[in-house]
Amino acid sequence: MRQPAHGGNLAWAAALAGCPPSAILDFSASISPLGPPKSAIAAIESQLDHLRHYPDPDYRELRLALSHFHQLPPEWILPGNGSAELLSLAGRELAQLAATALITPAFGDYYRALAAYHAQVLEFPSLVFRTSQLIFDKVQKTKDKGLLLNNPHNPTGVLFSREAILPYLEKFALVVVDEAFMDFLPPGQEQSLIQVVQEYPNLVILRSLTKFYTLPGLRLGYAIAHPERLRRWQLWRDPWPVNTLAAAAAVAVVQDKEFQEQTWAWLPPARNQLFAGLALIPGLQPLESAANFLLVESQQSSSQLQQNLLQHHQIFIRDCLSFPELGDRYFRVAVRCWSDNQRLLEALSLVNKLGV
Amino acid sequence: MRQPAHGGNLAWAAALAGCPPSAILDFSASISPLGPPKSAIAAIESQLDHLRHYPDPDYRELRLALSHFHQLPPEWILPGNGSAELLSLAGRELAQLAATALITPAFGDYYRALAAYHAQVLEFPSLVFRTSQLIFDKVQKTKDKGLLLNNPHNPTGVLFSREAILPYLEKFALVVVDEAFMDFLPPGQEQSLIQVVQEYPNLVILRSLTKFYTLPGLRLGYAIAHPERLRRWQLWRDPWPVNTLAAAAAVAVVQDKEFQEQTWAWLPPARNQLFAGLALIPGLQPLESAANFLLVESQQSSSQLQQNLLQHHQIFIRDCLSFPELGDRYFRVAVRCWSDNQRLLEALSLVNKLGV
Repeated sequence: MRQPAHGGNLAWAAALAGCPPSAILDFSASISPLGPPKSAIAAIESQLDHLRHYPDPDYRELRLALSHFHQLPPEWILPGNGSAELLSLAGRELAQLAATALITPAFGDYYRALAAYHAQVLEFPSLVFRTSQLIFDKVQKTKDKGLLLNNPHNPTGVLFSREAILPYLEKFALVVVDEAFMDFLPPGQEQSLIQVVQEYPNLVILRSLTKFYTLPGLRLGYAIAHPERLRRWQLWRDPWPVNTLAAAAAVAVVQDKEFQEQTWAWLPPARNQLFAGLALIPGLQPLESAANFLLVESQQSSSQLQQNLLQHHQIFIRDCLSFPELGDRYFRVAVRCWSDNQRLLEALSLVNKLGV
Repeated sequence: MRQPAHGGNLAWAAALAGCPPSAILDFSASISPLGPPKSAIAAIESQLDHLRHYPDPDYRELRLALSHFHQLPPEWILPGNGSAELLSLAGRELAQLAATALITPAFGDYYRALAAYHAQVLEFPSLVFRTSQLIFDKVQKTKDKGLLLNNPHNPTGVLFSREAILPYLEKFALVVVDEAFMDFLPPGQEQSLIQVVQEYPNLVILRSLTKFYTLPGLRLGYAIAHPERLRRWQLWRDPWPVNTLAAAAAVAVVQDKEFQEQTWAWLPPARNQLFAGLALIPGLQPLESAANFLLVESQQSSSQLQQNLLQHHQIFIRDCLSFPELGDRYFRVAVRCWSDNQRLLEALSLVNKLGV
């Protein structure tokens, strides 16, 4: 059976565990365990009567809601069918440059999106992610090149400061920052570049609403960039990329302050609990993370750990085989609620000690 | 206020009519008035608890349902976020050829999809659509060129026979047939090329589920073509283009024989009623159509008619300004149920006679 290329392929895991997908405790997809918010489900239900109409091709209401949320004019925002759709459009832009710099390990879909348009990739394999420093000093002649990075970084969870990225906006022709996990940081700590986007026509920010709001089934993201660039992107794709139900859910969740506060209150202690528990297990070393997941270095084969956890505990962790720089000695786990985290820690201890 | 480029921009119409969008009687979008089927809504509701998971990137269940529906192996089917998404991918393929032949008037999004990849367009402006003949004899050297057409043709409603298209599959390097309205023809009358697709690796068929099943808000379509081509397309786009709710609705509706039978029973008499009524109004001449819409030639300005119908009757018809070959002397109307059709006919008579 084919190993899934992406996190969260529950069908594959369930087959291996010999149970229905619903019985799997999924730590593999970096999705909040708190949602979906009730506001999202209510918004979807309220639109079931409106499926007979096309979505508004300008997504005015959705752009307005995002505009209020980010304090940014609506024409700087382009909704998409998940940030993955917008990544493909960014890949097309980046492919027009001489090359694109990536820090590795990098999210697998970056390679897909860049390869789709035959973009030249410059890899910066590094342990940079342990230092929160961005180092691209080996790139010669940056003015004809692009830079694609995520912040916080996936799969390490490292957060780059705004100041660490700003110099590269002066150096590179185009900088695409995937902030899919930035909303997990509370307002005082986040390092989004949204607040400076209007000063940099060569900056593109990708955001997701599916991770923080537990809606990966819905496909919902947006790009923030200069209106001229977004108008060009609009012509590269179909006129109605976001369906009516997803658009309504997006409008609801960005206004759901209660859910947002709840998430920011949950994450730091739950992440600390998981980090401390993992660090106590011999042979495992978690990395500090600003996001809702932890990368863990393992002295045992992580594929073997994954398989044992599935077969004996119906728990699904993310191996890192799709990140060639990490290979079989790393795995990634999402932070979940207290009791789920505890279940993972206990299962890992058993598997680590007894192999079951 | 900007004129919408696509049919069905209700917000624009409602503003002109001075009423809420829900009060508009919409003849502009060529969508069945019978749905959405209850089976679709039930399928969506059943998935509201599953939004916390990513869709299956292989869409196995959906492909299997479509595979049964069309008696075709699943690997010949690629689901998409509306057939419009798949049209963009087809545009990319066509752009690799020397040029693409279009019969005009052609659906506006064809130009967008072809221009997105700088495809060369060869237009065949013609009254061909009155004869159901396809004539591309002026294309010299077809072997390096593509052909993009819809069947039934939009906006005329003309149905080309399978036999009329087959010769072009031998002549052109790639033939893309948009069958977005083909399902409105009952099994005995449809002229789909699906039954021959396995014999022609240079054939791509695009299908929509949103028109027949009244689900344009959901975005749901699929391409049928050689598996190798579809695997290439999959790498050009994001891994989860169809959201969980849309995928579930699709699985349900293709199995909803009752809704299908009901639609095939409704359309011919309703279309006859509308055709006969329009033909009786002085200055209007409807064209014979095999689809769920009628193109109407008008001695009066159709923009003026559209405006009068909105302002005095809250009825929205589709002007044809986006089809340069038709301009202001044609409009298009969807076939709706008996009483709606009657309301349109009465309003058109009044507007035609009195201007109100």
